[in-house]
Amino acid sequence: MPDTLPADSVGIVSPQTYHFDAPIDLACGQSLENYDLVVETYGTLNADASNAVLICHALSGHHHAAGYHSAEDRKPGWWDSCIGPGKPIDTDRFFVVSLNNLGGCHGSTGPNSINPETGKPFGPEFPVITVGDWVKSQALLADRLGIQCWAAVVGGSLGGMQALQWSLDYPDRLRHAVVIASTPRLTAQNIAFNEVARQAITSDREFHEGRYYDFDTVPRRGLMLARMVGHITYLSDASMGEKFGRELRDQAYKFGYDAEFQVESYLRYQGERFSESFDANTYLLMTRALDYFDPAYEFGGDLSKALAAASCEYLVLSFSTDWRFTPARSEEMVNAMIGARRKVSYAEVDAPWGHDAFLIPTPRYTDIFNAYMDRVAREVGA
Amino acid sequence: MPDTLPADSVGIVSPQTYHFDAPIDLACGQSLENYDLVVETYGTLNADASNAVLICHALSGHHHAAGYHSAEDRKPGWWDSCIGPGKPIDTDRFFVVSLNNLGGCHGSTGPNSINPETGKPFGPEFPVITVGDWVKSQALLADRLGIQCWAAVVGGSLGGMQALQWSLDYPDRLRHAVVIASTPRLTAQNIAFNEVARQAITSDREFHEGRYYDFDTVPRRGLMLARMVGHITYLSDASMGEKFGRELRDQAYKFGYDAEFQVESYLRYQGERFSESFDANTYLLMTRALDYFDPAYEFGGDLSKALAAASCEYLVLSFSTDWRFTPARSEEMVNAMIGARRKVSYAEVDAPWGHDAFLIPTPRYTDIFNAYMDRVAREVGA
Repeated sequence: MPDTLPADSVGIVSPQTYHFDAPIDLACGQSLENYDLVVETYGTLNADASNAVLICHALSGHHHAAGYHSAEDRKPGWWDSCIGPGKPIDTDRFFVVSLNNLGGCHGSTGPNSINPETGKPFGPEFPVITVGDWVKSQALLADRLGIQCWAAVVGGSLGGMQALQWSLDYPDRLRHAVVIASTPRLTAQNIAFNEVARQAITSDREFHEGRYYDFDTVPRRGLMLARMVGHITYLSDASMGEKFGRELRDQAYKFGYDAEFQVESYLRYQGERFSESFDANTYLLMTRALDYFDPAYEFGGDLSKALAAASCEYLVLSFSTDWRFTPARSEEMVNAMIGARRKVSYAEVDAPWGHDAFLIPTPRYTDIFNAYMDRVAREVGA
Repeated sequence: MPDTLPADSVGIVSPQTYHFDAPIDLACGQSLENYDLVVETYGTLNADASNAVLICHALSGHHHAAGYHSAEDRKPGWWDSCIGPGKPIDTDRFFVVSLNNLGGCHGSTGPNSINPETGKPFGPEFPVITVGDWVKSQALLADRLGIQCWAAVVGGSLGGMQALQWSLDYPDRLRHAVVIASTPRLTAQNIAFNEVARQAITSDREFHEGRYYDFDTVPRRGLMLARMVGHITYLSDASMGEKFGRELRDQAYKFGYDAEFQVESYLRYQGERFSESFDANTYLLMTRALDYFDPAYEFGGDLSKALAAASCEYLVLSFSTDWRFTPARSEEMVNAMIGARRKVSYAEVDAPWGHDAFLIPTPRYTDIFNAYMDRVAREVGA
């Protein structure tokens, strides 16, 4: 945390755990008898509970989206740039709910939680979770919090898929869906990168078919490789060039295979750090949720037919250099929304940072996001 | 081989091994006391040895570029589409030389060859080889074959880098350089993908710091991962979409991590097959040669200054959907060639197959390549 708390920070925040005792049926056919969701909230719920905004996280995200856990925290939550007083998701006006998704590894029930039936971590017995399952669990969380209808459900990347799914599964329970840097379904290339990540993890000898907890180890190298390849897809060629170019750590070539280029040591560092903090089974689960997401599938691939069920308004945002989920993929969604006679605002924002641009405030991105959320707030009298 | 040999095939070919007894000094400061190069030739060298064309191979390539090794061969050489009677590199007119590069794993001296000093495979003791080293060894091969000046040096991808390097290091020994789907140097993103591949190999427990031969094993999983990630970068998002889309192997989602999407099983198959036939140390070596290639480096990054030494003509070809080495990278080379007052023909060919397009004949690609090589042949009276 900085020495003085910035005026636009939500400040020190504490996560809360909600326990759910009723079983939840999942798309895979299995169910969880009971489970925990770890949640942070920022701002105050108004009297008619109309000012609530749900934040949905992406692959490696979690509930800690804004503020600091303690004065010693070096970094704020992962979307602190967009959540706080005066920011697009303005905590002076909105009551913001951010959770760690089911299957996560940051406190909500997931593969590294104890399976009450065996007294050991679930590991590979933890069911595969879909975007639809997440939305269902988030609706149960909304019930618990007394929120009948979200002012907005908001997410980037995999989070944007959840926002879109909300609008299909619970059309009466949200007024707006904000879908940022997302896609209506993965391409073969997207799935291919996920598959490389999964193979890296499952082929690590320390994986032990997902039971590594029992062996007091983690598939560190596999998780590191998965993160390295993922990380490349989050950045643009141009932004990597800008940041690292061909810069060497030392003066000259060393004619070996140690990290010589700055980009090599950066990637290794990112991979290593991630492998120390993220659960490998959760990584598999999150990538599979991405692969499976395809709301148009039951409608013969016609997303506008799927959207016939929806009634909310949409904000869709894409970033010019995002090659993971290109602007063309956002435009597919926008076209389908228009086809389904839905209200949709769309902008492709020029930004050099590739997919990661949704995490980085830039004037046009912030301005559009601000203006839209201001309208959302006015609608609910916030 | 097909039942009847196609009229435009070079037919059954046999590789030959050339032994070199004089030490070769390498860029890394080490030298090899002696070495073998395995070579195939197609066509006939004319009386004044002016019709010789050198083929330079890419990362996973080798000397077997055209024809069949036996009637039982199912597939011809890797560039059979472009080499043969009546093809762009017309073996009725040219004498074509194709070798496995030093450091390769298909017969030329490389990490899996026996180190005469120890009686064991070189493994990690094999020196890191640069594009310049390859060109030097190819010049020694030309001496051996009695070729003072190549009609053309031709290559795609890493092979194109060798063609470019030839024009700088031996300007009097080639008339034309044909540089296809290549780049004057890797970007940070290119290096990053190579680094993922190397980390996959070196972090495989079976790698044994490169001495896996002594342990009677190979880092199969690492090599498989390296190939999978490489393979994704050789294809375009569109061509993967066209070929696989989101097609499932079975009817419905299985809610697990086995290969369910066609693209997953394709990639696994490609990776597994590669890991059975390619040497891991050679893969490291080839990727490092790619990383290091940067002929402009000594000239303050100004490629046109590097090209002041050159005197050949150039054909540069790029492919519209190649995101590994984009058309913009070829245009950098073309601009530098023009800046250096060199003759250069350039075309960006529309093709959906990404980087791999240089291996796939398409009318415009073949027409341009044919026309240019026809001019090369006429110049030398072939």
